Amino acid sequence: MRLGVLGGGQLARMMALAARPLGIDVTVIDPNVEAPARHVASHIVASLDDREALHQLAEQCDVVTIELEAVPPESLEHLQRLRPVYPSGEFVAMTQDRLSEKLGLRALNIATAPINDEVELPAIVKTRRGGYDGRGQRRVSTDAERDRALDELPDPIVEAIVDFRRELSIVAAADRHGRIACWPVATNTHRNGVLFTSQPHGDDPCQQQAEAIATALIRRYGVIGVCCVELFDTEHGLVANEVAPRVHNSGHWTIEGSTTSQFEQHVRAVCGLPLGLSDLRQPTAMINVIGQEPSLEHLLSIDGVHVHRYEKAPRAERKVGHVTITAATERQLVDRIRRTKAVIDS
Amino acid sequence: MRLGVLGGGQLARMMALAARPLGIDVTVIDPNVEAPARHVASHIVASLDDREALHQLAEQCDVVTIELEAVPPESLEHLQRLRPVYPSGEFVAMTQDRLSEKLGLRALNIATAPINDEVELPAIVKTRRGGYDGRGQRRVSTDAERDRALDELPDPIVEAIVDFRRELSIVAAADRHGRIACWPVATNTHRNGVLFTSQPHGDDPCQQQAEAIATALIRRYGVIGVCCVELFDTEHGLVANEVAPRVHNSGHWTIEGSTTSQFEQHVRAVCGLPLGLSDLRQPTAMINVIGQEPSLEHLLSIDGVHVHRYEKAPRAERKVGHVTITAATERQLVDRIRRTKAVIDS
Repeated sequence: MRLGVLGGGQLARMMALAARPLGIDVTVIDPNVEAPARHVASHIVASLDDREALHQLAEQCDVVTIELEAVPPESLEHLQRLRPVYPSGEFVAMTQDRLSEKLGLRALNIATAPINDEVELPAIVKTRRGGYDGRGQRRVSTDAERDRALDELPDPIVEAIVDFRRELSIVAAADRHGRIACWPVATNTHRNGVLFTSQPHGDDPCQQQAEAIATALIRRYGVIGVCCVELFDTEHGLVANEVAPRVHNSGHWTIEGSTTSQFEQHVRAVCGLPLGLSDLRQPTAMINVIGQEPSLEHLLSIDGVHVHRYEKAPRAERKVGHVTITAATERQLVDRIRRTKAVIDS
Repeated sequence: MRLGVLGGGQLARMMALAARPLGIDVTVIDPNVEAPARHVASHIVASLDDREALHQLAEQCDVVTIELEAVPPESLEHLQRLRPVYPSGEFVAMTQDRLSEKLGLRALNIATAPINDEVELPAIVKTRRGGYDGRGQRRVSTDAERDRALDELPDPIVEAIVDFRRELSIVAAADRHGRIACWPVATNTHRNGVLFTSQPHGDDPCQQQAEAIATALIRRYGVIGVCCVELFDTEHGLVANEVAPRVHNSGHWTIEGSTTSQFEQHVRAVCGLPLGLSDLRQPTAMINVIGQEPSLEHLLSIDGVHVHRYEKAPRAERKVGHVTITAATERQLVDRIRRTKAVIDS
């Protein structure tokens, strides 16, 4: 079996690392000659709208998937004529645009933040397309600020600021037969708008509602593979924030923390293989390494620390790796997280 | 950091898969163009005594290790002048020859099977060098049979048949500072002389004695990296059978069953990084896939099954992959082992 991936970043890299033991070849398209997946996958150096490269990918692969939602819709459409592509263009398109995402969620009776005319200030003005990790958005407190942001940001949407107790996310997978497996929800924290930590909970009170949200999306859009919904936990229940039609940073803990990692699960699903167990094996947390890389030796001197470097050039606000921490008890986990953060921040 | 490996089989493949997340490059030398490590490591296609290839390896690497004991001693000696090589030539040489292995063990007061003149028939005549997986050995019951085997087998040794309750092994690692980490001992079963299953035990009554044996060897030979001692559990205590100066098939369960896999541990040790935890995370067992590959779909339909294909051409008696099985309870593990064996044997 040969799997093609649009994008060759860290998500494709971890997919390829999970695919190899199953004997599955991965080929990626990425314009960056230093794409993180380059060491473990065949790498077609080309942009994602390069027709010749797409043909080459189709020739080298039996099935195609994505590692990012920012893929040209025409490329997905074109590939769909050549090979099975998961997820569908419809699902990807819904997640590429904050407005269609919100409307798509609401059509399934999933709560979202108020938008546009529904919003009271202060609020956040965001670009409908292309923003990520806190980029392409601006907080506005007055009508004048809002109007200026609406003028200056391309194709904007106004979103209410949701009063939440915590941010969490659910990562879920569906196979070709419609079977669905959800991992335990994880609580997320951010630094400067970038995901910093994710910690799963085996008995989270929001699990059932989060699974219902993921399941509704998967059924409506015929999802095959892994997807993620970022959620706000509010006093009125869960509010959906964003949908990712792919493996997600908040699911990286599954590599060591679950019987089946989100990467192996995705590969299995899109290749027509059965899903694996999506459990929580033991207390686990994930911490992103952002900007600069800490000492590998210091990180590895902490018991239960698993290091994942992406082999990317360091740059401010850039995710250059992550660390998963496993422990026998919650108490031990808290201690190891504290020591790991100290190394990352040193 | 760049790691060179003599040999590009499945052990080097799994080392490279463990090294990549740490940002460590692996280069292997292997004469087989289809060496299992080829997909995840740089591959120098050459025999292990090719001087030019050894020089190329040294140029591409900061440190060198092995994935098999059958390396030409001259190659190790030569490389040692160019780069740090772990383990030492002395330790490798000791394990290459069944006689020096036995004498080396005895010098440390570690019990071995009686050999040569000490032996009463029936016994086993083995070649001192190069035999593995039951090859190069013959069971003899009479003086005539023994004499014929001694004539026919090259450079033979006579070994007594040890009356054991079970076969087990201990896998251990040492870092450059002399710190040692041993995994729980595993009980091994064989099929036609080839390892078939390994199952670790968290509270094995032989753990302490096995660790003492591994520790004595590591201290005596200044081992850095992972090694393994195969043992017989007899009514007079443990008897050492074979020493492997490398990661070992009976330690494959550590990939999913321990916080640190033997492959990551070895890479960390030889690269001068600290050792990780060598615990047993949950009930785990390993089953080898020998000869022909079973249905991937059927294997993956069993919860807790982790498939490791080596991408080798199938051949009778050849290890073409292994499966690790994890479970929440011993009872669940037994059930999953039974179902996995049924798929492998079908």
